[in-house]
Amino acid sequence: MQKNWVFMIKPFEFYFDFGSPYTFLAHNEIRKIEKENSIKIKYMPVLLGGLLKSAGIKANVDIPIKGKYMIKDCKLWAEKYGITFKFNSYFPIITLDLMRCVLIAERKDFAQNFINKVFDAIWKDGLNLNDTLILQKLLQNLDINPKTFLVEAAAQKNKDELKKRTEDAFKKGIFGLPTFIVNNKIFWGQDRLEFVINEAKK
Amino acid sequence: MQKNWVFMIKPFEFYFDFGSPYTFLAHNEIRKIEKENSIKIKYMPVLLGGLLKSAGIKANVDIPIKGKYMIKDCKLWAEKYGITFKFNSYFPIITLDLMRCVLIAERKDFAQNFINKVFDAIWKDGLNLNDTLILQKLLQNLDINPKTFLVEAAAQKNKDELKKRTEDAFKKGIFGLPTFIVNNKIFWGQDRLEFVINEAKK
Repeated sequence: MQKNWVFMIKPFEFYFDFGSPYTFLAHNEIRKIEKENSIKIKYMPVLLGGLLKSAGIKANVDIPIKGKYMIKDCKLWAEKYGITFKFNSYFPIITLDLMRCVLIAERKDFAQNFINKVFDAIWKDGLNLNDTLILQKLLQNLDINPKTFLVEAAAQKNKDELKKRTEDAFKKGIFGLPTFIVNNKIFWGQDRLEFVINEAKK
Repeated sequence: MQKNWVFMIKPFEFYFDFGSPYTFLAHNEIRKIEKENSIKIKYMPVLLGGLLKSAGIKANVDIPIKGKYMIKDCKLWAEKYGITFKFNSYFPIITLDLMRCVLIAERKDFAQNFINKVFDAIWKDGLNLNDTLILQKLLQNLDINPKTFLVEAAAQKNKDELKKRTEDAFKKGIFGLPTFIVNNKIFWGQDRLEFVINEAKK
């Protein structure tokens, strides 16, 4: 089990996309850090695919030898952190709609609950959120009307906003996820949380 | 300063190429682990460029936004490990000849000393080993006759052997450096040494 994250720290930004297993691992640690330090970390929804495209980086899923390694590596980290983790057998989950939904959930003030549930659905319950029916059921379980919610998410203005946030993140120097920003410094990877905490204590 | 690496552990394989700063960081920790546990880790020379090419992965040096981040990240790790580290301003150093030299040094039984000196020349002293004169001087300081040594290294048989070792590493599932193998399990990155040690204790 990972050591506890209790420190005197300032809040920081956490850039995420549901599709990344390492980002799920970071999200779990972030939740512990929030609870143990009574702070709120700023969740920053962006599109991993957009960042990689801008940076000219191939996704792990498109590099078979690396993708295979990643599954084992994620399991080791989950074990170290002492959390439930199941590599989603429908990977990659196309998260474009889900990330757009986060912006709607932000506006309606239930973003954190929405984020927690979607992350768990993919990386704990192993659900196939590429299947529209399964996605609709998940939304219904959150007391969301799937039809109107997804229509709002698909509005051009909302699409543009997510695109802009992703572009802004790239301009800050972000090229992968999870990424953390604290004191204007960038840290990439759940395996850099130790450095993030050190910086957040300054 | 990094915690000490004193455990009851079995030797493992360490795949390296001088050109990778993260591999230099790993090499330094490996030397500590060897000393503190009275074991010899098996140094496995391979070509990072060849591995990346086989895997279809772009080198960090070809991804400006990632390359920029890497420099800061390496410095944080060097600080954590408590070691002297200088990001080589002539990066990337073309290590093809140097890695071929390792095989000759192996046959002549001075591989470890050669490896230590070349790693330090690049990542502690910041030397430009792309410059033939500087390389020759380094070899002379090691009591090596640069001319005959480099001719031996450039022999077709030696070139083929390094190529074969790199291909064999790729076949084992290695796609980046540093990589460690213990109990037939692969661990990629100096930041996975903790997992390597855990496995080596089994």
